[in-house]
Amino acid sequence: MIEQVAYRVGEIKPFYAMALLARAKELEAQGRRIIHMEIGEPDFVTPQPIIEAGIAALRSGQVYYTPSSGLPALREAIANWYSMSAGIQISPDRIIVTPGASGASLLAMAALLNPRDTILMADPGYPCNRYLARILEGNPVGIPMTAKNAYQFTADHIESYWSSITKAVLVASPANPTGAILCQATLDALINSVESRGGALVVDETYGGLVYESESITALTLSDQVFVINSFSKYFGMTGWRLGWLVVPDNFIQVADKLAQNLFLAASTPAQYAALAAFRPETIQILEERRMAFQQRRDFLLSKLQVLGFYVPAIPQGAFYIYADCSKFSVNSMAFSQNLLENVGVAVTPGLDFGCNDPHRYIRFAYTTSMERLQEGIERLQTYLS
Amino acid sequence: MIEQVAYRVGEIKPFYAMALLARAKELEAQGRRIIHMEIGEPDFVTPQPIIEAGIAALRSGQVYYTPSSGLPALREAIANWYSMSAGIQISPDRIIVTPGASGASLLAMAALLNPRDTILMADPGYPCNRYLARILEGNPVGIPMTAKNAYQFTADHIESYWSSITKAVLVASPANPTGAILCQATLDALINSVESRGGALVVDETYGGLVYESESITALTLSDQVFVINSFSKYFGMTGWRLGWLVVPDNFIQVADKLAQNLFLAASTPAQYAALAAFRPETIQILEERRMAFQQRRDFLLSKLQVLGFYVPAIPQGAFYIYADCSKFSVNSMAFSQNLLENVGVAVTPGLDFGCNDPHRYIRFAYTTSMERLQEGIERLQTYLS
Repeated sequence: MIEQVAYRVGEIKPFYAMALLARAKELEAQGRRIIHMEIGEPDFVTPQPIIEAGIAALRSGQVYYTPSSGLPALREAIANWYSMSAGIQISPDRIIVTPGASGASLLAMAALLNPRDTILMADPGYPCNRYLARILEGNPVGIPMTAKNAYQFTADHIESYWSSITKAVLVASPANPTGAILCQATLDALINSVESRGGALVVDETYGGLVYESESITALTLSDQVFVINSFSKYFGMTGWRLGWLVVPDNFIQVADKLAQNLFLAASTPAQYAALAAFRPETIQILEERRMAFQQRRDFLLSKLQVLGFYVPAIPQGAFYIYADCSKFSVNSMAFSQNLLENVGVAVTPGLDFGCNDPHRYIRFAYTTSMERLQEGIERLQTYLS
Repeated sequence: MIEQVAYRVGEIKPFYAMALLARAKELEAQGRRIIHMEIGEPDFVTPQPIIEAGIAALRSGQVYYTPSSGLPALREAIANWYSMSAGIQISPDRIIVTPGASGASLLAMAALLNPRDTILMADPGYPCNRYLARILEGNPVGIPMTAKNAYQFTADHIESYWSSITKAVLVASPANPTGAILCQATLDALINSVESRGGALVVDETYGGLVYESESITALTLSDQVFVINSFSKYFGMTGWRLGWLVVPDNFIQVADKLAQNLFLAASTPAQYAALAAFRPETIQILEERRMAFQQRRDFLLSKLQVLGFYVPAIPQGAFYIYADCSKFSVNSMAFSQNLLENVGVAVTPGLDFGCNDPHRYIRFAYTTSMERLQEGIERLQTYLS
């Protein structure tokens, strides 16, 4: 038999976090109590107003296809949200509703990348973005982010890594796994650098809204030429509904619509109707309370991890992750993760899931579980590591 | 500015049906009553048991991510359905739940196609499949289906078109837009032909279940090496929920799971819980009644179109389309479609949406609207064409 599997598949690594999660579930089935700090999904259920809107949509038979680019009312609601939260006017035509941020990333890359075109992205970074580029036969280039720079992607990185075959740059703010955010000045410099080179800047704002000290800023306030990925999953608490969006420059509206028609036809209709309730004041109030809870968890977890001997060079400003240097305990973070799970029932994600920039020194903690469980996790770590 | 849009986009044509639909909506906004026979979406709402299951899922907070390959209970339910309806045992591990059949096609092609690999498919055929192959840098090759052969894809086509760079063959049964189905002998010959060449056969069974005279047969009864695409959209009446599945051979289970993780993370959770009710006897009863209604519509529309002078060489056996030769009236089916819309308010899809095999002689009628409206449409056509 000839080799049927496409080459691209061989270059895609499975997520180690998934294997650890499977092992954690095995242990739970045996009666062990596991503290989950490996999961990139908040423990909070979807806010009730969104659930109710979803139920109302189903009751009234809103189950037919929407246009490929999304329900017009939802595209307008997103535009209004940009107006209210960021004071900017974005035409709803530029907003394409997608099946999750995954759909938005796939769409942006399909619109931009020719085979062998490079797209620069952060290492460590969200692994799917790297593999989506590869699936489309583009060439993802990971740029090592450094602790001394608080893992911030800067225009200097572009200066160093841009080449004649570079087509685009993907940055995330807040970033997974580091929680780094891009301030306005940094974003401005990135935009200028990419635009002056004729490239495209894709800003992944999947964790937008989940920012703690500083103001959450969208790149759309600074340029109408950027591609912005966003999601209803994280801040809005709609993970399993699979809903996100992509904002494109004017000259990509038709392009994005054509690609959406073919790649996924349209996003889920009940989810789109439910999401109409995501921007209501009563929902935002719930979401803001959750943001405070995340901040409290971060503050607790960060200080405790530092006391335990994990090295976290800069306070993670957003998302719900702490990317910690565990080299005081192990320079094999994969084995260390397995040990933590087997010996004290604490599940974390090894650095290997995020790239090849010194991953063996790092693990990612997600504070997507309750304070009570975080406390229990810290106590277990304390006992084990001291 | 350098050309930012990827080359692939230039090769993707927008769907003419979408432009006609937009024009139809304009006319409706002006007060015109339009008979829609262009839409590939049944007028029936999702069966009530599925809606209720969806509502129950939302009420109980089933809004978190499922595993990438789908909810285990749903994969099992699909396997049980194959057992009950086709008498075959398919391991749930081989079933990957996807965001619609679109997700299943994308997954299958991403797993199989290297750049420039050809994939053979029918012309006329569902246009997204052609473009998905192109998006992945594969090379879709349309094979002209002929009226004298009732538009059936056969092993002879493979014999004629297979080349050293052919990797896969995609066939659909029932097929869009022709309604042709593949009988067991034809399917068997196709399987033998493709497997003997070391290629992969992908069978699109999106319209499986919507078969009128004959038995609906799945290719899975004949081989465990085929890839089978299916959908909850058409027979099960769940279009807007965006849910489908892909059955893969054993050695593609890990491959498909890895690709699903990256391409879409997982399908919609509320939709997956809702779909658990799709196989219940009370749902199947509703669906079977609808199938009878479709058959009645097909019989009516087909006989009337033939009397009017449209040429339909073979009775369409499945799906909900009639692909009719309109050359008695026009050899420019695009202009003819526009005329029908403007002059008598009947919307149909021009052949151009389905490929380049003599498309100017053909239009597609969808019987996705009520008998009453079909009758009205026929009366309008009668007046206009006689």
